[in-house]
Amino acid sequence: MKDLIFLTGGARSGKSAYALQCAGCYEKKVFLATAEAFDEEMAARVQKHKEERGTGFYTIEEPMHLDRALREIPGETEVVIVDCLTVWAGNLLYRLGSSKEIMVFVDRLLDVLQNPPCNIILVSNEVGMGIVPENAMAREFRDITGIINQKVANVSTEAWLLCSGLPVKLK
Amino acid sequence: MKDLIFLTGGARSGKSAYALQCAGCYEKKVFLATAEAFDEEMAARVQKHKEERGTGFYTIEEPMHLDRALREIPGETEVVIVDCLTVWAGNLLYRLGSSKEIMVFVDRLLDVLQNPPCNIILVSNEVGMGIVPENAMAREFRDITGIINQKVANVSTEAWLLCSGLPVKLK
Amino acid sequence: MKDLIFLTGGARSGKSAYALQCAGCYEKKVFLATAEAFDEEMAARVQKHKEERGTGFYTIEEPMHLDRALREIPGETEVVIVDCLTVWAGNLLYRLGSSKEIMVFVDRLLDVLQNPPCNIILVSNEVGMGIVPENAMAREFRDITGIINQKVANVSTEAWLLCSGLPVKLK
Repeated sequence: MKDLIFLTGGARSGKSAYALQCAGCYEKKVFLATAEAFDEEMAARVQKHKEERGTGFYTIEEPMHLDRALREIPGETEVVIVDCLTVWAGNLLYRLGSSKEIMVFVDRLLDVLQNPPCNIILVSNEVGMGIVPENAMAREFRDITGIINQKVANVSTEAWLLCSGLPVKLK
Repeated sequence: MKDLIFLTGGARSGKSAYALQCAGCYEKKVFLATAEAFDEEMAARVQKHKEERGTGFYTIEEPMHLDRALREIPGETEVVIVDCLTVWAGNLLYRLGSSKEIMVFVDRLLDVLQNPPCNIILVSNEVGMGIVPENAMAREFRDITGIINQKVANVSTEAWLLCSGLPVKLK
Repeated sequence: MKDLIFLTGGARSGKSAYALQCAGCYEKKVFLATAEAFDEEMAARVQKHKEERGTGFYTIEEPMHLDRALREIPGETEVVIVDCLTVWAGNLLYRLGSSKEIMVFVDRLLDVLQNPPCNIILVSNEVGMGIVPENAMAREFRDITGIINQKVANVSTEAWLLCSGLPVKLK
């Protein structure tokens, strides 16, 4: 039985650091990054994250087709960190526009997670605990993110909420 | 002794689904909806929620006078889901303007909750964990919502925070 | 061994009330306030908080140099409530601008917390669980706040997330 660990939390709540810690006991590690460095601020964040995780990870960048990236993961891989589902949701929304099309991608990911090729640690974000955004696209984004979080947490073997760097057990 | 179950969480965190699950063991169920479908997006949300809860509920729509709606609930009712207190707070703020007048309505609700006519499941939202809103009305709204959550959680027999569809016990 | 209690939570989640409750068992109490009443709304909030905590506290106002204020705390003090770190982070960002300079102040606070002069209760806020703010300064603020929360929670002997007035144990 493979571990499927779902990690969520607010910005700078220690999710990525905790993901690295969860992956610490494995050899042959893959980091599956969903972020694209399309501006300077983002490039700085991506670089910072790379430095924080140090060596020991083989990095794959895939902004959309997480299912395919996971299916094609090198056979000897023991654990993959997917970081993060929220940026992935943003990529899908930006490129596909409609929720219906996005859900096709989500269902494909869930298919892979039902029968995972290795242990998987999935990082996501809490974006729905603030004031309702005035922007319609932002409201749609937080709906999609919330639904993805529910679906992925549902098939996970463990789920944690990070808060101030500390994990709260969800399941 | 009646159950008073308080459920809170972010947008699309699974609060309403968990409320339905909590109500699952009862017959004679009432759904007390606070939302008014004043635009298309809201109408779509209301309709979606109706479909999700299926048959088995007698629906009452009451945007303001929750105390009265609860007092006049049909006598044989075993459980009522109040969904949700945050929309109710928004309705009160929109119509009454001042926090002081709103607190009169909140106190009336608390009076009923002290001596509930049946088991009650109250759904609310976390709206205070984002950046401080620039809009003064939004700041007032999140203050009011936070105070309502504290007061209702205080008189509840159980309280849960939903996160990614999973419940964290608050009390 | 001194208690270092870290309390976080959203707006109006009951953090300050819980801090007062935690301090209840002590005599010789200091309230170290970081807020400055630079406008009417803020002045009203500060005044409301003062009334809520009643007498029994010696109040010190220090918007920036928390380390110095803590080092110079009267010798007989049994407990100090620092309320709050988020406003402090805002003060630092407003005055210093750069994250690098802010981290100097944070490290100085951490130095004091490693060897605290008395029991300390530190109140902070969750500001990173909403939609990513469009404003770059707001994004920087929530990054800084998140990092401060992680660092302070890390050296604390206890950490709690307040939600609807109820504490969730983080550590």
